[in-house]
Amino acid sequence: MVKRGNEERAADVADRERSAVSVIGLGQLGARLAQAFLAAGHPTTVWNRSAARAEALAAQGALRADAPREAVLASPLVVVCLPEYATVREVLGPVAEGLGGRVLVNLTSGTPEQAAEAAAWAGRHGAAYLDGAAMSGTRLVGRPEALFVFSGAPEAFAAHRTVLASLGNALHLGPDPALAPVYDTALFGLAWGTLAGFHHALALAGSAGVDPVAFASVASAHLPFVGSLLGEHARQVTEGRYPDDDGTVDVHRAALEHLTHASAAAGLATDVPRLFTTLLERAAAAGHGASGIASVAETLPAHAAA
Amino acid sequence: MVKRGNEERAADVADRERSAVSVIGLGQLGARLAQAFLAAGHPTTVWNRSAARAEALAAQGALRADAPREAVLASPLVVVCLPEYATVREVLGPVAEGLGGRVLVNLTSGTPEQAAEAAAWAGRHGAAYLDGAAMSGTRLVGRPEALFVFSGAPEAFAAHRTVLASLGNALHLGPDPALAPVYDTALFGLAWGTLAGFHHALALAGSAGVDPVAFASVASAHLPFVGSLLGEHARQVTEGRYPDDDGTVDVHRAALEHLTHASAAAGLATDVPRLFTTLLERAAAAGHGASGIASVAETLPAHAAA
Repeated sequence: MVKRGNEERAADVADRERSAVSVIGLGQLGARLAQAFLAAGHPTTVWNRSAARAEALAAQGALRADAPREAVLASPLVVVCLPEYATVREVLGPVAEGLGGRVLVNLTSGTPEQAAEAAAWAGRHGAAYLDGAAMSGTRLVGRPEALFVFSGAPEAFAAHRTVLASLGNALHLGPDPALAPVYDTALFGLAWGTLAGFHHALALAGSAGVDPVAFASVASAHLPFVGSLLGEHARQVTEGRYPDDDGTVDVHRAALEHLTHASAAAGLATDVPRLFTTLLERAAAAGHGASGIASVAETLPAHAAA
Repeated sequence: MVKRGNEERAADVADRERSAVSVIGLGQLGARLAQAFLAAGHPTTVWNRSAARAEALAAQGALRADAPREAVLASPLVVVCLPEYATVREVLGPVAEGLGGRVLVNLTSGTPEQAAEAAAWAGRHGAAYLDGAAMSGTRLVGRPEALFVFSGAPEAFAAHRTVLASLGNALHLGPDPALAPVYDTALFGLAWGTLAGFHHALALAGSAGVDPVAFASVASAHLPFVGSLLGEHARQVTEGRYPDDDGTVDVHRAALEHLTHASAAAGLATDVPRLFTTLLERAAAAGHGASGIASVAETLPAHAAA
C-alpha cells in the first residue's frame, strides 16, 4: 500500500465526502440508482422501509443506514425515490432539520404542483431542491443513453453534476422545480405515440408476412429521421410558419386514408391511423390544408373538447 | 492531362457505364435523386415530361434525354419516380423492349399489388425489378441518414448497391417486390405516431410555459431510448411473452389517465392520450393487465372493427 502524507489524505477524505450520496427508497428504480452510484465509485448510503433490499445493496458495497436520519446525515446529496409524494413527506418530515445545507433530489413521480410544494418545503428547511424524472425506465440506468431530467436549484445541479451523471445522460431543464414533472408527463405521451405507431405498423407488416424483428430493425433505422423533424416542427411552431417541405396536411391526409384502408383490408383495428387523420382534419379545418404538417401542433390547444 | 493506354481507357469506359444511371420523372423527389447521383459522380441521364426541370439538372451536369427511350437506353440502371403507377406504364409502356437486360428501380408510391404487377411486367420484358421507397422525405436525399428501402431482385440490388447508396442508407428488404410498399405504408404510421405524440407533448409543455425548441431538444434526446424498445417489443411479440421490465399495462394505463387529466386541465384536446388508453384497455381486456406493454401489439390484429 502506498503511504501518503496527512495533507493528501485530508484531500482524499474531502473528495470522498463531496461525492458521497444517499438513496432513500429502494424500489425497482431506487435500487438501480444506488447500483449506478456504487458502480461509478461514489460512497453510497441506502435506506429502505423493508430491510431486505438494503441488505442486498450492502452486499454490493453500499453503507446501510438504520433510519432515514442516518441516511440524510451521511451525504451532502440525498436522493429520494419513493412510491408517492405523501411517502416522501412521511419519511423525511421527522428528519427535515437534518436536510439543512444539503441537496435533496426527488425522483418520486408526481405533479408539477407537488414538485413546487416539495421545493418550498425543502427551502424552509435550508435544503436546495432538485426535482427529477427517470425517462428511460430502469434497465438502462447507469448507461449514457438513460435520460434523467432535473429541474430546480441550478447551482445544486452544477455542484453534483458528476454524481448525477453516473445515472446516465443528466439534463438540467431550468430553475423551476415543476419542469421535471412537466417534461416527464409530456415525454410519456411522446413515447406512447411512437409505441402506438410502432405496434400498429408491426401488426400491418406482420399481416403481410414480415418478420417482427426484421421490421423493428428497419423501423429503428427510420426513427432518427423522424426525430430530426421534432426540432424542425418546434421551430415552425415558434415562428407560426409551416412550409410544406415534408408534405402538406392534405397530402398526408390522403396517405393516411391509404394507411387506414390497408389496415382495414388486413383485418386490423384502424383507430391508430384514424386518430392521425383526425389531427390532420382538424388542421385542415383551421385553414392549414396547404400548410406543412407541423401546423397540426398549432391546432391542438384550440380544441379542448375531450 | 495524363495519357493512358487503350486498355486503361476501355476499363474507364466500362466503369463509367457500370455506374451510369437514368432518372425518369423529375418531381420534387426525382430531381433530388438525380442531384444525389450527380454529386456522387455517376453519369446521370434525366427525362421529364415538362422540359424545364430537365434543363435545370442539365445545368448541374446531367445528360438530358429527349425521350423516355433515350433515357432507358443510356444506362444499365433506370430509376423511375412518377406521380403514380398508371403514369409509369404510360411512360415506359412504349419503350418496354428497351428495358431488356437492365435494372428498373421504381420509386413511384403505390400498393404492394401494384409493385407485384410492375415486377411481373418488367420480368416479361427481360428487366430485373426493384421496388423502392424514400422514407426520409426529400430534404435529406444524398445524406447517410436518408433511408431508402428496396425490394425485389437481390442480385440487381447487389450489382447497383454503390449507385443506390449515393441516395442515402439503402436497405434491401427481401426478394418480394411488394415489401417496399408494405414497409413504406407501415413506417408512415410509425412516423405519425411519433409526430402525434410529439405535437401533443409540445402543446402540453407549451401550456406550462416551456419553449418549443428547448422541449424538442430534450424530446430528441429521449427518442433513442424509445427506439431501443422497438426491437425489444418485436422480440416479445415473436416469442408471445411479455415481461414487465418497462412497466405493466395497468401501470401505464394509470399514467396515461394522469396524462389525459393534465391535458384536459391545460385546455388541450385529449384524443391523443385517450387513443393510447384505448390500446391499453384492449390489452387489459384480453387478459394482459399484468403483462408488459408490448402485449398491446398482440391485441391489434384481433379487433378489426373500424
